[in-house]
Amino acid sequence: MFDKILVANRGEIALRVIRAAREMGIGSVAVHSTADSDAMHVRMADESVCIGPPSSSESYLSIPSIIAACEVTGAQAIHPGYGFLSENANFVQIVEDHDLTFIGPTAEHIRVMGDKITAKDTMKNLGVPCVPGSDGGVPTLAEAKKLGQEIGYPVIVKATAGGGGRGMKVAKNEGEMEHAFMTARSESKAAFGNDEVYIEKYLTTPRHIEIQVFGDGKGKAVHLGERDCSLQRRHQKVFEEAPGPAISAEERAEIGKTCADAVARINYTGAGTIEFLYENGEFYFIEMNTRLQVEHPVTEAIFGVDLVREQIRVAEGLPMSFTQDDLRINGHAIEVRINAEKLPEFAPRPGKITHFHAPGGLGVRMDSALYDGYSIPPYYDSLIGKLIVHGRDRESALTRLNRALGELIIDGVDTTVPLFHALLQEPDIRRGEYNIHWLEKWLEDNLQD
Amino acid sequence: MFDKILVANRGEIALRVIRAAREMGIGSVAVHSTADSDAMHVRMADESVCIGPPSSSESYLSIPSIIAACEVTGAQAIHPGYGFLSENANFVQIVEDHDLTFIGPTAEHIRVMGDKITAKDTMKNLGVPCVPGSDGGVPTLAEAKKLGQEIGYPVIVKATAGGGGRGMKVAKNEGEMEHAFMTARSESKAAFGNDEVYIEKYLTTPRHIEIQVFGDGKGKAVHLGERDCSLQRRHQKVFEEAPGPAISAEERAEIGKTCADAVARINYTGAGTIEFLYENGEFYFIEMNTRLQVEHPVTEAIFGVDLVREQIRVAEGLPMSFTQDDLRINGHAIEVRINAEKLPEFAPRPGKITHFHAPGGLGVRMDSALYDGYSIPPYYDSLIGKLIVHGRDRESALTRLNRALGELIIDGVDTTVPLFHALLQEPDIRRGEYNIHWLEKWLEDNLQD
Repeated sequence: MFDKILVANRGEIALRVIRAAREMGIGSVAVHSTADSDAMHVRMADESVCIGPPSSSESYLSIPSIIAACEVTGAQAIHPGYGFLSENANFVQIVEDHDLTFIGPTAEHIRVMGDKITAKDTMKNLGVPCVPGSDGGVPTLAEAKKLGQEIGYPVIVKATAGGGGRGMKVAKNEGEMEHAFMTARSESKAAFGNDEVYIEKYLTTPRHIEIQVFGDGKGKAVHLGERDCSLQRRHQKVFEEAPGPAISAEERAEIGKTCADAVARINYTGAGTIEFLYENGEFYFIEMNTRLQVEHPVTEAIFGVDLVREQIRVAEGLPMSFTQDDLRINGHAIEVRINAEKLPEFAPRPGKITHFHAPGGLGVRMDSALYDGYSIPPYYDSLIGKLIVHGRDRESALTRLNRALGELIIDGVDTTVPLFHALLQEPDIRRGEYNIHWLEKWLEDNLQD
Repeated sequence: MFDKILVANRGEIALRVIRAAREMGIGSVAVHSTADSDAMHVRMADESVCIGPPSSSESYLSIPSIIAACEVTGAQAIHPGYGFLSENANFVQIVEDHDLTFIGPTAEHIRVMGDKITAKDTMKNLGVPCVPGSDGGVPTLAEAKKLGQEIGYPVIVKATAGGGGRGMKVAKNEGEMEHAFMTARSESKAAFGNDEVYIEKYLTTPRHIEIQVFGDGKGKAVHLGERDCSLQRRHQKVFEEAPGPAISAEERAEIGKTCADAVARINYTGAGTIEFLYENGEFYFIEMNTRLQVEHPVTEAIFGVDLVREQIRVAEGLPMSFTQDDLRINGHAIEVRINAEKLPEFAPRPGKITHFHAPGGLGVRMDSALYDGYSIPPYYDSLIGKLIVHGRDRESALTRLNRALGELIIDGVDTTVPLFHALLQEPDIRRGEYNIHWLEKWLEDNLQD
């Protein structure tokens, strides 16, 4: 068992891990840059080590400094949180080479899932549904049309050598295939000197649905349902919920089992998230995140589990404390990400918190590293807090979110709170009818003037 | 359906009700004394009405002022919280006479349960276990000995006319009965001019176990298990937990059904609590509280229900939103009452809160009306907050409580927080081995020097 773990992160996620460690009777070591000497994670940990200047690359990303902090403090394990070094296979290797435990999956799993092509091949072989398409290049129009029939329109023709949107053409039906195929080829030839193209199913209005999985590293794994994280701005999630309003119990059971079986077969260790696009009842694998997600609390709320505790337990070599049969959904949870940003540009707004007051009462969880007088440094991510609400059903979670947002006070900096007040007024949000394009469109229509 | 309800209370319980109303889309009216103009419940409610000077009897207990506040604001219903007018049958009658709805049981139920003798008779007739004893006076020693045999020793001989501990004698066995009986009679004669005594079973180290019941007023009722509130100082609960560490699932099911059936038979409306002493596997009725209890959140945590919402729904004439079969216990919850009091005397310490920071993270609920700069007025109860933790089991709730207490900051006044830090170190508390005398004894041994 660990006596002491080091948290190689900052902000709310560092607090999250320190809290779990404390509840398990495990000592905690915070690391921090010189910009974070007064940060909450430093104040709350049992010990702290300054590991470098403000720049992340010289502090929170500095592998030698973090290893040295372990050695100085006698920490036996490292929890990476999310971001920073959490998906760095090289870091994991170095941690293990120093006889320390990385609280997370193996370097190999991180490496495999970190490469999009290998990840997709691996998942496909494990039976996880991927976007259907050609196996490599499609040389002729006849073959392209045959594939269009097989896959189902719309499809997208993409340059094999492509990127940045060039050499990409959508065919909505067979009549458009000839034009799409020829244009993609000629654009590709012109742009990349190579006219090879491949074909994939094109999703028009998908949702972002992700499945939380958890493995014991010894061939057992479970799923903890899905989260709908479709509300995104520039690929950054802002509002997440579980269960997904569009996902049926049957769909959940099926895709969940597929994902749990897949990670069980590769002896995956700890928490992971398999991300999908979802459209018309079908799931299409995007990528796997081999770490805790920012939005893990919505899953904790509806399943009544403590994912960080579970990560630490499994890293200690203990069995998982729940089986698939133990995991039942209770109610509905929503998380909103509170960023220190000024709307409508979402411009970062570091600065001093002159007053902070967290909402309270039934079904409200606040994960934040804020305190009165805290100065948000300008060097890091603008996420300053997560407000998570849990209610008996989606409607009650929404009304509770509205109530809790009304109680929250963060004075001194601009935040994204007004965005959530506005979103809660939207009939689409109240009905759960949105996809990955909804928020961008809504922001254009509502905030860009 | 109600558009607007008035909350005839203050402090954290007023916030509790305002939050529930807001989540249901119902407007809220706060009432307040002149001492509470800046109180959180006033700030948080949609509207507020000043109903009098600081003295409770002229404000929070002033029935005409509260009725007038309803009429002025158009509130259709009154939630009384706990304390103040919550168990005043006369108030309920006046509320109804003004065509307003009292969110709680009928005046008749309050009246019956408000009188200890009527309450006990009623409960006994409804099959609820009471302390066994003589039916009225016991005229002879022979009869006293016969009763001692029947009831089982120890028993207590009490003056019928008695009170204040005079004319009360315990007999631990038949050998002590003659002395106890004769002494009680002579003391009673001397003190009250009446030597009639009665006999009851004497409980030496009971626990305080209370059953949460809920009725729809139309003959349906459920129970929501028990709370163990044995940790008391001068009959004031300080630490409450659910489920009770000494209560088995079978005991819970049996006493729970007895209580639910009892209140169903009298068409009880809303939330109620049937309090028992519990010793050697037996429950003995003490009294019924015909209102929400301070410690209701521990029940909400383990059953995943919102008792205040349910109270409002039932008062609106809606059916209960759960049946007995829906109610399953999930984990363990503990509440500690944070009072503005100085230890070891528990002397009230009103004053200004210079800094307040609530604990956060998984499984933590803070119900408090505190905010930075708030001045606790000296006129009311010293309860300033309730910290409620919920974990997968008792051990995890205890460690979470310890963690959350460590995060809580209340600067400017003395509080009972150090008491809880100390209690969490006690092996008896960690093992759940305590009874209604434990805390008084512990305080004598540990704090009175």
